[in-house]
Amino acid sequence: MHPTDHDDQEHTMTSTFSRTEPGASAAALAELLSTIDDWSVDGDELLRVRSDRSGWLVEGLPEVVIRVTSADEVSRVLAFATLHRIPVVTRGAGTGLSGGASAGEGSIVLDVSSLNRIHQIDPENQIAIVGPGVITADLDRAAAAHGLRYAPDPASAAISSIGGNIATNAGGLRGAKYGVTRDAVLALTVVLADGRILRTGRQTIKGVTGYDLTSLIVGSEGTLGVVVEATVRLQPVPVETQTVVAFFDTVVDAAAAATAIGLARLQPSLLELMDGPTLHAVDDAQGTDYHRRGTAFLVAQTDGFGASAEIERITAVLRRGAREVTRALDPIEAEELVRARRLALPSIETRGRVLIEDVVVPRTRLAEAFLGIQQIAQESGVQVFVIAHAADGNLHPIILLAAEEPSEREWHVAGLIFELALRLGGTLTGEHGVGLLKQRWVRGELGETGSAVHAGIKSLFDPAGILNPGKSF
Amino acid sequence: MHPTDHDDQEHTMTSTFSRTEPGASAAALAELLSTIDDWSVDGDELLRVRSDRSGWLVEGLPEVVIRVTSADEVSRVLAFATLHRIPVVTRGAGTGLSGGASAGEGSIVLDVSSLNRIHQIDPENQIAIVGPGVITADLDRAAAAHGLRYAPDPASAAISSIGGNIATNAGGLRGAKYGVTRDAVLALTVVLADGRILRTGRQTIKGVTGYDLTSLIVGSEGTLGVVVEATVRLQPVPVETQTVVAFFDTVVDAAAAATAIGLARLQPSLLELMDGPTLHAVDDAQGTDYHRRGTAFLVAQTDGFGASAEIERITAVLRRGAREVTRALDPIEAEELVRARRLALPSIETRGRVLIEDVVVPRTRLAEAFLGIQQIAQESGVQVFVIAHAADGNLHPIILLAAEEPSEREWHVAGLIFELALRLGGTLTGEHGVGLLKQRWVRGELGETGSAVHAGIKSLFDPAGILNPGKSF
Repeated sequence: MHPTDHDDQEHTMTSTFSRTEPGASAAALAELLSTIDDWSVDGDELLRVRSDRSGWLVEGLPEVVIRVTSADEVSRVLAFATLHRIPVVTRGAGTGLSGGASAGEGSIVLDVSSLNRIHQIDPENQIAIVGPGVITADLDRAAAAHGLRYAPDPASAAISSIGGNIATNAGGLRGAKYGVTRDAVLALTVVLADGRILRTGRQTIKGVTGYDLTSLIVGSEGTLGVVVEATVRLQPVPVETQTVVAFFDTVVDAAAAATAIGLARLQPSLLELMDGPTLHAVDDAQGTDYHRRGTAFLVAQTDGFGASAEIERITAVLRRGAREVTRALDPIEAEELVRARRLALPSIETRGRVLIEDVVVPRTRLAEAFLGIQQIAQESGVQVFVIAHAADGNLHPIILLAAEEPSEREWHVAGLIFELALRLGGTLTGEHGVGLLKQRWVRGELGETGSAVHAGIKSLFDPAGILNPGKSF
Repeated sequence: MHPTDHDDQEHTMTSTFSRTEPGASAAALAELLSTIDDWSVDGDELLRVRSDRSGWLVEGLPEVVIRVTSADEVSRVLAFATLHRIPVVTRGAGTGLSGGASAGEGSIVLDVSSLNRIHQIDPENQIAIVGPGVITADLDRAAAAHGLRYAPDPASAAISSIGGNIATNAGGLRGAKYGVTRDAVLALTVVLADGRILRTGRQTIKGVTGYDLTSLIVGSEGTLGVVVEATVRLQPVPVETQTVVAFFDTVVDAAAAATAIGLARLQPSLLELMDGPTLHAVDDAQGTDYHRRGTAFLVAQTDGFGASAEIERITAVLRRGAREVTRALDPIEAEELVRARRLALPSIETRGRVLIEDVVVPRTRLAEAFLGIQQIAQESGVQVFVIAHAADGNLHPIILLAAEEPSEREWHVAGLIFELALRLGGTLTGEHGVGLLKQRWVRGELGETGSAVHAGIKSLFDPAGILNPGKSF
C-alpha cells in the first residue's frame, strides 16, 4: 500500500546490520523484515529520523525505519525487539519539540504515520476512533462536518499527528477552558513491549472500572507502549467566538491583566501573551507594526452562547491596564488578530535556529517569570522571545541559537529558565514533554520516591527497556 | 485532639488480637498502637466499619480502627502492616456505594476523616489544598467565598469526603460539562504501602513531567496507596444558571430528547432523567404529583454567560417530544424543580433497603438501556427504579430489596443489568467504583492483558497486597 524501497537496498541493509552490537543478528532482523510490508534503510531516511522539530540529534544511526501498516506488525516488531533487546523509537509526524522521537544508534524506528485512518466518527455519541498517524487538523475538520471539533488545539495542529499529541499530552491554545489531550482521550489500543495488545478505557464518556491506564499512557512519550488506535471525545463547535486584543506598556502590565481576568472569574477560551521581542520578530517577518503599539500583546477569545457578554467583561478588565484595546468586529478581523500569535514562532524562526522551551508557573507568578527570563537573557547575552498561554501559566521561552546546535551557554540559559520555573512553584514542561531536552532536570522534579515509582512502572511495561530509551523518565 | 477510647479497652483489644492469624502478634500491634494518638477497638465501632452506604458486609471483624491525625501516622501504620501482612482498609465518610470501604476479618481500618483541614484556598490560582477528610460540600462552600466552586458534584456532596471522591473518581450531576473528580485533581500526597511518601502532579494547571501518577491513584479505590493531601482545581461559579423540566409519556421519549439535546450541539450543565417508578416514589415520599404529569422526567440546566440563550434552545428541543415543558422563572423555582431529582434516592429508600447500580452506556443507547432494565425487572419480579445522568449515559438502576441483604435473585438482576450495559457497549461503573459489588464482572471488562497489567501495577505499589484487598481490581 505504500512504496517500499528495500528491494534495491540489501547491501546497505547488511552493512547497517553489521553495526548491531548487542542486538539481533543481521539474519534475525532480515527474517523479521521479510514479514514487514514497508521498511527502509535508506541513508537519508535514517538521517531524517535522528531528529524531530527540536533539532536535537542523538549519536549514531538507527538500523531501519519500519512504516507499520497494522497493529499486528507493531506487535511482531516489539516482540522481536524485546527478545533481542533492540531499542524501538516510535515516530509519527516528527513535529515534537523535545527530542522525544529522535532515534539513535542501533534502534528500530517504528513510523506509525501510515496508521492514519479516521476509522469512525460517531456524531451522536461525540466520539471518534482514529489511528495515531491522523493529522490533528484533519480530525478536527472531519468532526466539523458534524458541528463538532477535537478540542485540544496544539499550535502544531496542522502538522502534528494524534499519536504524537497523545505521547506528549499536547496542550494548545484552548487548554485552560477545554483541557489538553489527556482530557479528550477515552480509550486506547496499545501494543506492549512484549507484543501483547492492551485495550484501555472505554467508549463511553464516563467509566471507573479499573485503574486509569489511558491517562498513564497519555504523556508517556512512547516509553510504555505503542498506541495503534485511540478513541477521542469530540466537543460541539461553539456557536459564537469573540476576540479582543490589547497592547501594554510592559510585559508586567500584560501579565497582571491576564491574572486580573482570572480573578474576575472570566474564562477566556484563548488567552495568549507575547512579549516585545516577539512583536518585533512578527513585525519584521510579516510587515505589521505591532511593536509600535506596545511592548506586550494579549489576545483573548471567548466562545459559546455567552461569548459577547463575556468578551465585554474581559474588555473592561483589559481597559484598566492596557495602552490600547481593540475588539474584533467580525470573524475576519478576529482571525487577523489571532494570526499575529499563530505566526509568532515562524516569524522568530526566520531569524535562525531556535530552542523552544515550555515551562509552567502558577498564574500569579507570570509577571515574575517574564521578568526573570528577561534578566537571564540580558545577563547571558542570549536572545529569548517569550510567548505564553497566559490562562494556564504556560510560557514558551524561545531561545535564538547562534549556530545550528545549542552552545553550552545556550543550554545554560535553558537550565536557568527551568530552575526559575521550579523556583516559582512551576514545572519543567507544560505540553511538549521531557524528551531528551529535559533529562537533566526530570528526577529533581519527580523526587526520589516519584522517580522510583516511575522506574517501577517503566520496568513493568517494558522489562527489556526497549521503548524509547533515554526519553521522558 | 480527639477523644481516645483505648484506655478502658485493653481487654477487648487483647481478645480481638487473639484472632490474628496470620498477622502481627498482639504485642507488635500493641506496640504500634502505643505510638498512635487515636484508635478504637470498641465493638460497635468495629461493626460500623464493616460496611459503607451500600450495606455490603464482609466476613469477620476488623482488628482496630485507627483515626489518623497525620501523614506520618499513616506512614507508620502502612509500614507496619506491610511488614506483618495485615490488610488495611482506608475509610473516610463511609458513604461509598460499592462496598469499597467495607473492612473484614483481621484488618486495620485507617480512618482518615480527621484529616479534614482545608489547608489553603488560593483564589488567584484557583486551587485548593485539602486533607482527604474534608467534606466535599465544605470545600465547595469555602471556595464560594471567592466566587469559585469545586466543580465535581456527586449527589453525596453533603456527606462524602474528598478522599472518597478521589478513591472512586466520583462523578456527579455536572459531570458531562465540567468533568469528574479526576479532572479536578492536580496533585496528591500519597502514602505508599511501605510507608514512603509519594508526591504526584503539580500545583500548576498544566504539566507533563513524567507519568500521570495522579490519574492512576484517582479511582484506584484505596488499593494503591493512601491519599493524605490533595491539590484540586477550582472553577468560577457561573454568573447565571437556567433550568427547564419536561415530562414525557414514555421513558423512551425522554431518552430520545436527551440524545436530541446532544445532537443539537447543546451542552447542559445538568441533564437528569427519572423514570415512572421513581416519580411515584418521590410523590409518595414528598407529597408531589409528578407521576400524574408524565411517566418520565427530564431536568436540564445551562450555566454561564449564555445560560438564557442556551436554555431556550434546549427548551425548543424538549417541546418537540415532551408532554409538558416548564421553564423555571427564578432560582427558587429552579431549586424546587431540581429538588425532585435530589430527593429521588431518599424517597426510594423510604420503601426499603436498596442496591444502587451505576452502569454507563453510549448516550445513543440510553433508551435501549431503560427498556432492557424494565424488561429485566418485569421478568424477575424485582422492583427497579432508574435515574440517569443522561448527558453522559450514566444510569443508576436502584434495586429495591425484599430484605436487609440482597437475595440471590436480586444479585442475579444486578448481574443482568451489568451484562446489558456491557452488551450495549458500556461499562460496569461510571462513578461509584467496583468495590466489592462488581468483582465478578471486572476482569471480563478489563480483558486478559488489561487484568495482567492491573495485577502488575497493584504488585508494584503494594507488593504485600495489604491495601484494601479484594476491592477494585
